[in-house]
Amino acid sequence: MVDMSSLMRAPAVAKAMAWVEAHVPQIVEEAIRICEIPSPTFEEGERAAYVRDRFLRLGLCAAEIDAAGNARGVRPGTGGGPGLAMAAHLDTVFPKDTDVRVKRQGTRLLAPGIGDNSVAIAALLAMVEALNVAGIKTAGDLYLASDTGEEGLGDLKGMKAFMADVKDHVAAAVAIEGMKINRIIHVAVGSRRYKVTYTARGGHSWGHFPSPSAIHILGRAIADISRLEVPTDPKTTYNVGVIHGGTTVNTIAAEADMLVDMRSVDPRALADLERRLLAIVETAAREGDGQVKLDLVGDRPAGSIPADHPVVETCRAVHRALGLTTYSEASSTDANVPLGQGLPGVCISITEGANEHRLDEYIETGPIPVGVKNILLAALALTSKR
Amino acid sequence: MVDMSSLMRAPAVAKAMAWVEAHVPQIVEEAIRICEIPSPTFEEGERAAYVRDRFLRLGLCAAEIDAAGNARGVRPGTGGGPGLAMAAHLDTVFPKDTDVRVKRQGTRLLAPGIGDNSVAIAALLAMVEALNVAGIKTAGDLYLASDTGEEGLGDLKGMKAFMADVKDHVAAAVAIEGMKINRIIHVAVGSRRYKVTYTARGGHSWGHFPSPSAIHILGRAIADISRLEVPTDPKTTYNVGVIHGGTTVNTIAAEADMLVDMRSVDPRALADLERRLLAIVETAAREGDGQVKLDLVGDRPAGSIPADHPVVETCRAVHRALGLTTYSEASSTDANVPLGQGLPGVCISITEGANEHRLDEYIETGPIPVGVKNILLAALALTSKR
Repeated sequence: MVDMSSLMRAPAVAKAMAWVEAHVPQIVEEAIRICEIPSPTFEEGERAAYVRDRFLRLGLCAAEIDAAGNARGVRPGTGGGPGLAMAAHLDTVFPKDTDVRVKRQGTRLLAPGIGDNSVAIAALLAMVEALNVAGIKTAGDLYLASDTGEEGLGDLKGMKAFMADVKDHVAAAVAIEGMKINRIIHVAVGSRRYKVTYTARGGHSWGHFPSPSAIHILGRAIADISRLEVPTDPKTTYNVGVIHGGTTVNTIAAEADMLVDMRSVDPRALADLERRLLAIVETAAREGDGQVKLDLVGDRPAGSIPADHPVVETCRAVHRALGLTTYSEASSTDANVPLGQGLPGVCISITEGANEHRLDEYIETGPIPVGVKNILLAALALTSKR
Repeated sequence: MVDMSSLMRAPAVAKAMAWVEAHVPQIVEEAIRICEIPSPTFEEGERAAYVRDRFLRLGLCAAEIDAAGNARGVRPGTGGGPGLAMAAHLDTVFPKDTDVRVKRQGTRLLAPGIGDNSVAIAALLAMVEALNVAGIKTAGDLYLASDTGEEGLGDLKGMKAFMADVKDHVAAAVAIEGMKINRIIHVAVGSRRYKVTYTARGGHSWGHFPSPSAIHILGRAIADISRLEVPTDPKTTYNVGVIHGGTTVNTIAAEADMLVDMRSVDPRALADLERRLLAIVETAAREGDGQVKLDLVGDRPAGSIPADHPVVETCRAVHRALGLTTYSEASSTDANVPLGQGLPGVCISITEGANEHRLDEYIETGPIPVGVKNILLAALALTSKR
């Protein structure tokens, strides 16, 4: 592993870090500009175009919007070091007409999406500019993206496309989130989500009793699902989150549906749960004389690397060098994609904040320079010759 | 039992029947006027006021709107015969803004509510006028109502209030429906309906698993309900007709509800089913660590009299005298109320038609005079000295 203190003493690195210190107002302005371009999942086009233009002006190679809508660019290395993918997602959970104007309150910036994930995109751009200004060439190539579809039903669409393209050129991937600067995620909670729709003959509750009922079938399926045993280690969970069905009290339901969520930190435990749950779903239809339709509405791969993996150790060494107090948690981020591919992946962050996914979301500007250094040093260390 | 052919040969009765034959256009006009006064369940006031005024002008005693919103009146008899309650419901299933203008198409009248139940109210008024014109005094008193709340969530509210008042003064009750002139209902399908609402702790599907879920509790309750055994004779049924629950796929549901329908032709079978079903509902809440709230949203008493009961025989004799081909079916009508009280009750009808509870509802005008005679002769026979 790269020695962090000698890395930070290198004159070019010191220059890059000094540039970051000196340009916090510019980085903050960039985060605000990005935040004020609405970018709901599936509607990231305008923000992606802005970031692609910034990539171009920063001199990245092959700066483009790819087929998945990601803003992409490459910063070639000198050769001989491992390639690294870095990504900060473009999308927010807020509808297009949400007021995304950023308010300042002392050291805080308040706006929906400011921390999740505008400040992370701004930090990624600042990192490139700092490297440029300091004249730093990394050994390995840097594959950079601001990607689509990280939130909700986006289902990691952008990151999946990005990693499919670059996975053979990189040795690791770093996802960048705005908040929780002390956190390193190296365990990806995978999820599989289904909309399950039952149909059955139905009819009048008196005249056609006991004609098959989609609601009765659904009830039996939920009852059996609710009795599934799952391991606590590796942590694995399930949930029937939403149900609908039927038309009136005296009509035997012809249709009923449920949304089912399954999660695990372990791909095999997730696959095993899914196999057992779908068997219940299909048995209920067969035994209840109905039909079932399955729609996969969510698919986020599980995966992990151990806490002592060199990539995690490197990120922890960066934290130590910057005075951060590292903690880890399992979560679902863009890092799910490399971890699901068996590629080392982590998610690291830029600053502190709160209320993500709420209209009163905010971040602190104070930690931003440390956050930019966090990803800059990680990028340098993870592309160094071994 | 009254001899039907000698009854019909009585000059006054022949005169009343001749009046009916000669005034079909007037009866049709009355049905149209009534139909064109919107009268959804719980909003029958304007139609009730109209019928009350007609009762007044027909010389009924104690013509009034009662506390339940029924138009009521009494036609006193000469004494010595059994009292009879007769009722034709005021309400329709159609919202207030429904276009209830009546269209004529050859021998048909088309409009929402024309057959269910405007023509029955018009027939009741015509019966009184025919008795008046012919100078007929019945032996027993006639207690007449056009009643509220027969449809849907009205839960027989009007009929319940009417029968509570008159049950000690009558020996039988006749409900009048517009359609199915050949039908005599003497078996009342009773129903009990609940809205069952579960609440539970809920939480995040990953972070709080396995926190209690209202949907999982509901599913287990539905599964157990769907396995309840009920008798086919006396016919008894149940149905979970509508379900809702949860907010998002990755939220453990804090609330979920269902609408449950239970029906039987036998009050004891219905009570037994209800006891077993509510035990399931409560056990599910307890075992699933949730709470349950029960709202009784429907309560229609079951009950029946046998096919050879004198009241049924009388109605069948009237049918025979008018050339009708009697059939019987169990159903839920205003006759549920007397049958549930242990009082002889039937439901008989005025004409043919179709598509009740639909916007394209229609009736045939041809059978109307036979239908008016049907209730007139039944009224005479059922109030005669024994």
